[in-house]
Amino acid sequence: MKKKSFPLAKVYGLLEPGPVVLLSTARRGKNNVMTLSWHTMLEFEPPLVGCVVCGYSHAALKATKECVINIPDASLADQVVACGNHSGRDIDKFAAFGLTLLPAAQVQAPLIAECFANLECRVLDTRLVNRYSFFVLEVVQAWADDDIAEQQTIHHRGYGRFMFAGETRQLDSKMR
Amino acid sequence: MKKKSFPLAKVYGLLEPGPVVLLSTARRGKNNVMTLSWHTMLEFEPPLVGCVVCGYSHAALKATKECVINIPDASLADQVVACGNHSGRDIDKFAAFGLTLLPAAQVQAPLIAECFANLECRVLDTRLVNRYSFFVLEVVQAWADDDIAEQQTIHHRGYGRFMFAGETRQLDSKMR
Repeated sequence: MKKKSFPLAKVYGLLEPGPVVLLSTARRGKNNVMTLSWHTMLEFEPPLVGCVVCGYSHAALKATKECVINIPDASLADQVVACGNHSGRDIDKFAAFGLTLLPAAQVQAPLIAECFANLECRVLDTRLVNRYSFFVLEVVQAWADDDIAEQQTIHHRGYGRFMFAGETRQLDSKMR
Repeated sequence: MKKKSFPLAKVYGLLEPGPVVLLSTARRGKNNVMTLSWHTMLEFEPPLVGCVVCGYSHAALKATKECVINIPDASLADQVVACGNHSGRDIDKFAAFGLTLLPAAQVQAPLIAECFANLECRVLDTRLVNRYSFFVLEVVQAWADDDIAEQQTIHHRGYGRFMFAGETRQLDSKMR
């Protein structure tokens, strides 16, 4: 699927429902990816995202101040779990789990081709990193597949339990 | 439904999948409730939650440093939308939308009886409040209904579109 640029003003709608995401980093020529669910929108425009990044990716994000948030659909559930079960210290997760890298436009970290949306991010605020590993990111470029409205996101409930997105309904909400 | 105390160590599983929540506050004898989706777990134990609180509730949370995060199921979707469409400056949303208050154990803010889980919280860190309205909360007491595993959560996709939780599957994940 060819990636199309996606409006930054609409990025929040991708992350608000709380999907599991794959966060990719690149440091000294070595790419890595981690699975995470601890993220929240912080601002609509420019889109600001806060997320907790631990493990091997923490050092890469702290050093490079760049990453990509990739949003997988239900068909990638096994790869999502595999990325969560392994550390980039030990293996190349992209090769091991059949994930395809694409170059990003504005950051060194790679996009994951199989994910239906990809958010290129720069670290904006590190005040809560030492205490909570919480990074404030600015989304500087977003990409999405054409059929984005039909994607079934994955949501983590803990200890191996994953909820897969159900029906979407239109309600009479004035909230953005 | 009678509320039972819920283990703090399991709270993260309620919030990780990104449900819309109702945040209740109490200030100078006046209760209020807002709808929000901008929240994330920050720590397992004690459970720490970060969330963006704006509008009328912002001042109450800043002043009292206490709130309750109430998690509604799909049957409350209309009330969730109504709470998001109105400000506590203008109306008593509990009375207007038929939400029942219960006293909390450790905070002044009320529990919402109709919600299947209720997390009593105290503000722990305000460093990101001025810039992002982002409060770090500690969950000090949690409550849940008996049938918590069967609850269908609501997830916001923006502009009136809400995703309702679908099927939950058990996958071979080693992640907590």
